Amino acid sequence: MKLKLYMHPLSQPSRALIIFCKINGIEFEEIVIDLTKGQHKSPDFTEINPMGQVPAIAHGDFKLFESHAILIYLASVFPGVADHWYPTDVQKRAKIHSVLDWHHSNLRRGSVIYGLNRTLGPVFGLPLNPKAAAEGEKLLCSSLSQIESVWLADGGPFLVGGDKTSIADISLVCEIMQLQVYILDESERNRFLEPYKKIVQWIENIKNATRLHFDEVHYALYKFSAMLKHKSEDAYSCIQ
Amino acid sequence: MKLKLYMHPLSQPSRALIIFCKINGIEFEEIVIDLTKGQHKSPDFTEINPMGQVPAIAHGDFKLFESHAILIYLASVFPGVADHWYPTDVQKRAKIHSVLDWHHSNLRRGSVIYGLNRTLGPVFGLPLNPKAAAEGEKLLCSSLSQIESVWLADGGPFLVGGDKTSIADISLVCEIMQLQVYILDESERNRFLEPYKKIVQWIENIKNATRLHFDEVHYALYKFSAMLKHKSEDAYSCIQ
Repeated sequence: MKLKLYMHPLSQPSRALIIFCKINGIEFEEIVIDLTKGQHKSPDFTEINPMGQVPAIAHGDFKLFESHAILIYLASVFPGVADHWYPTDVQKRAKIHSVLDWHHSNLRRGSVIYGLNRTLGPVFGLPLNPKAAAEGEKLLCSSLSQIESVWLADGGPFLVGGDKTSIADISLVCEIMQLQVYILDESERNRFLEPYKKIVQWIENIKNATRLHFDEVHYALYKFSAMLKHKSEDAYSCIQ
Repeated sequence: MKLKLYMHPLSQPSRALIIFCKINGIEFEEIVIDLTKGQHKSPDFTEINPMGQVPAIAHGDFKLFESHAILIYLASVFPGVADHWYPTDVQKRAKIHSVLDWHHSNLRRGSVIYGLNRTLGPVFGLPLNPKAAAEGEKLLCSSLSQIESVWLADGGPFLVGGDKTSIADISLVCEIMQLQVYILDESERNRFLEPYKKIVQWIENIKNATRLHFDEVHYALYKFSAMLKHKSEDAYSCIQ
């Protein structure tokens, strides 16, 4: 029963799913849904996800959306996935749920508001809004501080004291990697993250733990960032 | 090992946890954190939840916050909880995760923005903002439409085709019950929900399935709503 994965390379939760599948040897068919052409609202796609968002999966007759729910489903049904991704220990698992729930209204929300209003809006036909970008930045920065002081407080290499990567690590890191297309200048981007020393180290830890897959899946994002920076009119074509 | 539950009766996720515990016979010590006096930011409470929000639990040495994570934890560690609350069937469980993940950025976000800006802000020292209330209402109404057309599409008495209540039902219904303190006039509140006929029936189904506990836990909300409606200066005292 092959897995179909509906995604877009600029979608951070889509990338989290793809890295997860690749590193765990889960075979899947990748189906790009072109958000700029409104394919996510097409009848064909809303048959898969009636909310009209990527990522989504079809696994035989079973359809599912919301990336955290999908990560948990994949970790549960594919026997080759190591326990550290979604621990069976009830307290470790609870902490991962807590991180993922927190993510929705904090890191993710701040990141999306900041990015769309600072840089990325026009790609999706939306105007930039500096005031909204500033509000998003405030929530994004407070979220980064909370990752630093709460989720990485234990001093372990991964979130909530994990000694190996979990689905929470992969979900949150893909959100933070989106800074690549929010802040196009590399020095400025590094300065933005500089106050969060544990996060900078944690990103490196995840890159090392998922290497090759991490950069391969982020390649379209890196390329798009470079083309946006040089204001190429063909910027979008590179991710289609 | 007794469960300590840190909550506030005006907090919709707090009420979801309490209904869940009561109906499942889970003994707990209820500790009210007075949000209007800033107790959620006090050092004593941030030892329990460093994010400074209710609800949170302490179960022996184990501390946890985020209501969905707590509901899953309680359903997993207390053996008396029936399977329908958090099914072991991996596909049914995945659908419940999907509802809960969706909830964060849709129903919950719309509800909170609407309620705080339309009615409830001053209770927490915040100004009302009609423009923000209108934006919240838009997201709230689109979320209600999605519950109607997606989560209740199967025609079953409960969300995602469930024949008995799940943690998703209890979480979402407590959010919608918050309308009690957002729209103080009963006729206006009924008119607001009238277009969502499946939701109105679903709320009744949950009330019937959890009766006595449902109204008992919502009593403070009903009372607060009535006192706000009559603009009593002592409105807040009834929930302290």
